[in-house]
Amino acid sequence: MYEYTRMVFYYETDKMGVVHHSNYVRWLEEARTFFFDEKNLSYFETEGYGVMSPITDINLKYKLPARYGDSFTVRLQMTKYTGVRFKIAYSVVNQDGDILVEAESGHAFIDQKLKPISLARTIPERHELMKKLMEGK
Amino acid sequence: MYEYTRMVFYYETDKMGVVHHSNYVRWLEEARTFFFDEKNLSYFETEGYGVMSPITDINLKYKLPARYGDSFTVRLQMTKYTGVRFKIAYSVVNQDGDILVEAESGHAFIDQKLKPISLARTIPERHELMKKLMEGK
Amino acid sequence: MYEYTRMVFYYETDKMGVVHHSNYVRWLEEARTFFFDEKNLSYFETEGYGVMSPITDINLKYKLPARYGDSFTVRLQMTKYTGVRFKIAYSVVNQDGDILVEAESGHAFIDQKLKPISLARTIPERHELMKKLMEGK
Amino acid sequence: MYEYTRMVFYYETDKMGVVHHSNYVRWLEEARTFFFDEKNLSYFETEGYGVMSPITDINLKYKLPARYGDSFTVRLQMTKYTGVRFKIAYSVVNQDGDILVEAESGHAFIDQKLKPISLARTIPERHELMKKLMEGK
Repeated sequence: MYEYTRMVFYYETDKMGVVHHSNYVRWLEEARTFFFDEKNLSYFETEGYGVMSPITDINLKYKLPARYGDSFTVRLQMTKYTGVRFKIAYSVVNQDGDILVEAESGHAFIDQKLKPISLARTIPERHELMKKLMEGK
Repeated sequence: MYEYTRMVFYYETDKMGVVHHSNYVRWLEEARTFFFDEKNLSYFETEGYGVMSPITDINLKYKLPARYGDSFTVRLQMTKYTGVRFKIAYSVVNQDGDILVEAESGHAFIDQKLKPISLARTIPERHELMKKLMEGK
Repeated sequence: MYEYTRMVFYYETDKMGVVHHSNYVRWLEEARTFFFDEKNLSYFETEGYGVMSPITDINLKYKLPARYGDSFTVRLQMTKYTGVRFKIAYSVVNQDGDILVEAESGHAFIDQKLKPISLARTIPERHELMKKLMEGK
Repeated sequence: MYEYTRMVFYYETDKMGVVHHSNYVRWLEEARTFFFDEKNLSYFETEGYGVMSPITDINLKYKLPARYGDSFTVRLQMTKYTGVRFKIAYSVVNQDGDILVEAESGHAFIDQKLKPISLARTIPERHELMKKLMEGK
């Protein structure tokens, strides 16, 4: 279980006085990229190979709002990996451990022309690391 | 079926050269608020009653990317209304009619202390309008 | 004097109940790109030539806040063009004509390696259109 | 000289492949709020007194772009404080020490009706802390 924590930024709030719901989608991306960095699967380097991993679907359940002054932690783990697609599940909690959001995202691999590709065939060593991530989850 | 159309803004793109996936969540909100405006259910006025309707859940399926230079249309309709909750379904297409995103969002009604309330009891005339929206969908 | 108008989006507000100050920078970009579209100097097409025009400096004076429910109009005009740089001045007003923001931005032309270039030399016909814009302001 | 550092987020980039210029305005706010937190002048607590400090003007000079994969540091110091207004100067550098942006922002104090107020009169103990910040800069 990987954890990513930071403070809420003021500009992430809306006139309801809480974090705007669209920002959680961004928080999940932040957590996801730092997670892959730590696992030697840096998204930055993967793009260096001409491979990108866009989101194919996402769902979020909003339980409680985050507010300015709060910190949040995104807990995430990979829940599926097929060589051409993967899934990540997330739980976002605040500093008191209250669950704010439960979410899941799906991803594919594409080349620079935005065509789907197999990571297994394109970057085999990263494919091995992804498989290990699934085993060790 | 309500339709909302505008051009993609430059700042909505990311380094993949396409619109960042978090922005679709914002486009749905844009469409939703203009839809309610047109139906005399202005979100702005509803907040004047001390009633807010936060999102409780959302899911998006990304089919094709939008790009700078494109315009997009959000087609939406209310698919459920219970007096305390409602659901909206969306289809986002580009200027060529290609489907970019399919999505659905759920909403509740809350008061200024962020406690759930019944629209039927709090603003009965808006409750009637919401029921009509469902009948006429 | 070119004018660009739209409604404030909900997600542009912050917990102060007004539009977050960073969004005005985005509104100016929106107005600027539609302005150039109208003048046959589409930013989209200019990028097709491999030429981009990043911002080199910007200053904003915040007079009054915009709120959800407001519409805003950005009035803009080009105030300088040298073949390698240009400046644009903006005034943002609300639906009552109140001035919200006064601003000015500076821009350069660069190639895809982010090196400064002369528009006059790279796309002469666009250079002519830019000169006309200055004469006709 | 206060320093605030973090990684660039993917969603902060645009199709030019670099961080969109509007995000620097947000980075300055991030740095500013953490700076005041550290100085026992937490913006969060100040709002608890019913006092807000909106931005009155900002200017930014863009020197070099930040990219995904970079980290950035905002160096800031208060350059003016009058009891009713203050100014902050910023320098944003990347991990190699290259200057990305030079900026300055002006701020006022207002109450919940968005009317200007004197911090000296409204929260005298915070006024004293602000004066110390200026002396110690």
